[in-house]
Amino acid sequence: MAEETAAAIAIGPRIRKSPFYDATRRQGCKAFTIYNHMYLPVYYESPEADYRRLIEAVTLWDVGVERQVEITGPDAARFTQFLTPRNLSTCAVGQCKYVLLTTERGGIVNDPVLLRLAEDRFWLSLADSDVLLWARALAHALGYDVEVREPDVSPLQVQGPRSLEVMRDLFGGWIEELRYFWFRETELDGIPLVVSRTGWSAERGYEVFLRDGRHGDRLWETIMEAGQPYGIGPGAPSTIRRIEGGLLSYGADMDLDTNPYELGLGRLVDLDQEADFMGKAALAEIAQNGVARRLVGLEIEGPRLPTSEEPWAVAAGERGIGKVTSAAHSPRLGKNIALAMLAAEAIDPGSAVEVSTPLGRRAAEVVELPFFDPKKRLPSQS
Amino acid sequence: MAEETAAAIAIGPRIRKSPFYDATRRQGCKAFTIYNHMYLPVYYESPEADYRRLIEAVTLWDVGVERQVEITGPDAARFTQFLTPRNLSTCAVGQCKYVLLTTERGGIVNDPVLLRLAEDRFWLSLADSDVLLWARALAHALGYDVEVREPDVSPLQVQGPRSLEVMRDLFGGWIEELRYFWFRETELDGIPLVVSRTGWSAERGYEVFLRDGRHGDRLWETIMEAGQPYGIGPGAPSTIRRIEGGLLSYGADMDLDTNPYELGLGRLVDLDQEADFMGKAALAEIAQNGVARRLVGLEIEGPRLPTSEEPWAVAAGERGIGKVTSAAHSPRLGKNIALAMLAAEAIDPGSAVEVSTPLGRRAAEVVELPFFDPKKRLPSQS
Repeated sequence: MAEETAAAIAIGPRIRKSPFYDATRRQGCKAFTIYNHMYLPVYYESPEADYRRLIEAVTLWDVGVERQVEITGPDAARFTQFLTPRNLSTCAVGQCKYVLLTTERGGIVNDPVLLRLAEDRFWLSLADSDVLLWARALAHALGYDVEVREPDVSPLQVQGPRSLEVMRDLFGGWIEELRYFWFRETELDGIPLVVSRTGWSAERGYEVFLRDGRHGDRLWETIMEAGQPYGIGPGAPSTIRRIEGGLLSYGADMDLDTNPYELGLGRLVDLDQEADFMGKAALAEIAQNGVARRLVGLEIEGPRLPTSEEPWAVAAGERGIGKVTSAAHSPRLGKNIALAMLAAEAIDPGSAVEVSTPLGRRAAEVVELPFFDPKKRLPSQS
Repeated sequence: MAEETAAAIAIGPRIRKSPFYDATRRQGCKAFTIYNHMYLPVYYESPEADYRRLIEAVTLWDVGVERQVEITGPDAARFTQFLTPRNLSTCAVGQCKYVLLTTERGGIVNDPVLLRLAEDRFWLSLADSDVLLWARALAHALGYDVEVREPDVSPLQVQGPRSLEVMRDLFGGWIEELRYFWFRETELDGIPLVVSRTGWSAERGYEVFLRDGRHGDRLWETIMEAGQPYGIGPGAPSTIRRIEGGLLSYGADMDLDTNPYELGLGRLVDLDQEADFMGKAALAEIAQNGVARRLVGLEIEGPRLPTSEEPWAVAAGERGIGKVTSAAHSPRLGKNIALAMLAAEAIDPGSAVEVSTPLGRRAAEVVELPFFDPKKRLPSQS
């Protein structure tokens, strides 16, 4: 939808505001979406200007929508393992893991970042689905001795090449030693926090998990002030940057009917581990039989396309072979880039396909992911 | 938030569009929210103008967000009963029931309208939470022989005093015989439908469940055309009208931490039935011990208040005793009306309390629900 016809987002008591909501309005957030029943900022100045600041300096994101499901109790480790095909036996206290949660059929329920806070205490930092319901139903019905609840935790993300400097000024030298996908429990001016080296930008970045919602505004302003010398500004998950980096968005690029192998994330499934987990038998069968479709990168030819609002059909000649799940125009690549779920016949790099875009049918080519990665790795999928 | 500072709703592929989405944009929908991971229109001309049309004529709502969870298979009746404390043994094929789904602790997961399509086929027409995950987890873990899925079904609501005439012109005389909270499978110009006498307006109304998403636009236009003689216009769930009618909104007036007795909905819990259901033991204990808080109606004094954006604190003197969960100004009553969850000490009609509104502290009085009901019943809670 063109910006001149934009509709408003209705604000009402059915949808929760994060502890940083007032700050995001003060900062002039121009567009929101809703995620886990909460408001999520989408952009401030413009998607392109916010992206520039993210890749050139540093941005502060209200991602209070990343609700935590906390699993504690005698069976916490066993139950958390049961929720995901990833082998957690090597996950240390203080470590994060990108995991998929799967159904009995191997479909994806969510793709959270897991934090192990203690031997028997885990957080799942969620994408947009009600994992609290999923996990509570399984724990209760299967008789696991765990408590599954949503604690008072609201994350911020500090993302961008200058994020290290901001975080070092705030927290001290240990930030430089914090390894990728590890975290530390700490505080700032008496505000209890967890700080992790994670994020959803494919740039260097950190997450700051506020553990007491009363201090949201103070935490926001403290970080903003510390970031001034480094050009900090308000930001939000950048569709452009995350597609460049090949990062996936639950609800767009995957859902309950998508399995890990279709995403090329078989490395997150350990079928050989002794532990049982949801979907183990189904995933073993899929692994053996192979998948009929795969998520790939696409470069779409021609003039700049708008960011996609919905799936775009993909064809090879007259034959429908899949859909674009997310698309944007990358300013620095000068290309229209997309993620697409395509039939196995068309997934090899160099395959030529056609995409039905809002601006007409366009030629496109399958390419390797990520589109942009100076370090040749996928940062958010540790 | 005042309208002049309204933020836009971001449109992207992570959130689904209903089959009626294009029609709602053509009709000039000015504000949306997101519900069950889909866009939900909130108003067209203005909340007040839409309300006027709803109570004086007839309005057509895109409520495709009411996703259906379909339960089929040999254990369908037994499993559906297990999900809710309401006794379904008398629910006939063709009948609808307003039900609460509860956790093992008696907290509310969702408050759908249930439709029994066959002895072994049920739909739960959902409020905003992922019941598909909840129900699939329970069915799998407890070994019920059922299929739990989301069918291709997208409801519309035709609501308002002239809805009967519109529906009779479209479907014929049997509409006059359709009893409150009953439905019929039918079609319109070859479009497969379910038509029920239900809705969320507290006015006379119907729901039209589209069973083939390809025909959304045609169905919308057909109903709009039939409604022209009766003053039909586009509309949406009206916060004003539903509060007048004492209808509850999941996420605002209730959540996982609310039990049926706190809502005054003990009649939807049958502890004496033989069948087991989620939360039976917990609800029996709550029924015996009584509840410490109750949902009540409040009339808030003074000049017109804005529709609430978030919970408002309620006090008795210096003591916090609860919160307003939803509030609006009723034009026809000329009053600020609200639903509030209050400590048991303050729930008797006539109790005087004080509410912290965005326009300052206001005196308020507990009143009987509903605020407005010419027929003296709660239409949506059959």
